[in-house]
Amino acid sequence: MRRICLTISYDGTAYHGWQIQDNAVTVEGRVTEALRELLQEPVELAGASRTDSGVHALGNVAVFDTETRIPPEKIAIALNHYLPDDIRIQKSGEVTADFHPRYRESIKTYEYRIRNARIENPVRSRYCYHVRQPLDLDEMKKAAGFLTGTHDFSAFCSAGSQAKSKVRTVYKVEIYEYPVSYGDEGREIGIRVSGNGFLYNMVRIMAGTLIEVGQGRRSAMSVEEAVSAGDRVKAGPTAPPQGLTLLEIRY
Amino acid sequence: MRRICLTISYDGTAYHGWQIQDNAVTVEGRVTEALRELLQEPVELAGASRTDSGVHALGNVAVFDTETRIPPEKIAIALNHYLPDDIRIQKSGEVTADFHPRYRESIKTYEYRIRNARIENPVRSRYCYHVRQPLDLDEMKKAAGFLTGTHDFSAFCSAGSQAKSKVRTVYKVEIYEYPVSYGDEGREIGIRVSGNGFLYNMVRIMAGTLIEVGQGRRSAMSVEEAVSAGDRVKAGPTAPPQGLTLLEIRY
Repeated sequence: MRRICLTISYDGTAYHGWQIQDNAVTVEGRVTEALRELLQEPVELAGASRTDSGVHALGNVAVFDTETRIPPEKIAIALNHYLPDDIRIQKSGEVTADFHPRYRESIKTYEYRIRNARIENPVRSRYCYHVRQPLDLDEMKKAAGFLTGTHDFSAFCSAGSQAKSKVRTVYKVEIYEYPVSYGDEGREIGIRVSGNGFLYNMVRIMAGTLIEVGQGRRSAMSVEEAVSAGDRVKAGPTAPPQGLTLLEIRY
Repeated sequence: MRRICLTISYDGTAYHGWQIQDNAVTVEGRVTEALRELLQEPVELAGASRTDSGVHALGNVAVFDTETRIPPEKIAIALNHYLPDDIRIQKSGEVTADFHPRYRESIKTYEYRIRNARIENPVRSRYCYHVRQPLDLDEMKKAAGFLTGTHDFSAFCSAGSQAKSKVRTVYKVEIYEYPVSYGDEGREIGIRVSGNGFLYNMVRIMAGTLIEVGQGRRSAMSVEEAVSAGDRVKAGPTAPPQGLTLLEIRY
């Protein structure tokens, strides 16, 4: 028996999130089916990040145990033949039998993308949250500083979280402006967040809060207050899922 | 009666191209329907570029004549309420009654995007052509030089073209490498082409030919030979539509 680790990318638009469910199409469900077809044996997948409905990933991570004789690093390409175009295994390899992608310490990096323009750009709307009002990036950067460090992030966690402790360490919150296509009069802004773990909806609430700062609807300082208060109502709204991509998990 | 000019962006994935057809959903058809709903009068649209099935646009241009009293620059936002998410009018304004976007001299700019990586990236596959084999950008840039200038581009025109003359002027063919997301191990390459007009499939055949140069399957010099020969079989294949975006038309 060997434990195989997969690096998985997907366009989350068509899926009810990562986690397997009885009556909905999910990424975990589709990858599990593909593995069973390829390997012709029962397979249980254990994923690192249970991304929400509509959230994308470049590098989610999952493991499974198998008796297959397919060389570990070849499983990625073999499995892609059994997957729809909107899911692609980027890498596969053997790991030790005690490696669990959710419980092993890691640095996770997410990015939230915002399109800031008067009118939507249809070729970006699957991957960006459209914000009409011009955003003040300097204020957003100031506010981002208050979100880094080790804190109780209760204010940035949706109801329904099963986490016992709400303490997490955020290493970096960076605000970028991306180059847009020639002829495009809009702006595209990325909020990139790295940390040792994230609570339920945490990155989307951070994004929703920073957007309110960028719009001038709250001060940068109010973000520090929200963190200290630990009260969900002090933070901003949960930004919509299509802007969020899980970029990488590093162990 | 006033003539209104629209700047139109769309994700071409779901459409059978720009041009109105009886039994297929097209961009021109959807915009015409939306205009009739908004204005409650018969409308005939005249577009600048009849993009193919699956090709995207940031700035296609079309005009129509109307009796409406809606201020010309407000039509864009009003019309967007009647359009699906994958079509957005970016701008509207009045032009003179003799302005026709296809017959008026213009500079058109297209971009062909290539994803160059071992494995597809699902969040880019709607907008890129995936090429596995590493591309030599220096050779592609050399070959691109042979595609600029005023030439008979018969070798870069698909059968079915109704153009009387195949002479066109290409001002620029630039090869760019775009930054990719953090954690993404692939490359994204753009071929940006500007000219006074393009023959049927011309940009896609230029892209298909330059890709063959990048793969080392033909020499840069062979592109000059293809142009001189004026023979379609001397150029490369027609690259698939999803990589192509009409960026801008300047009058």
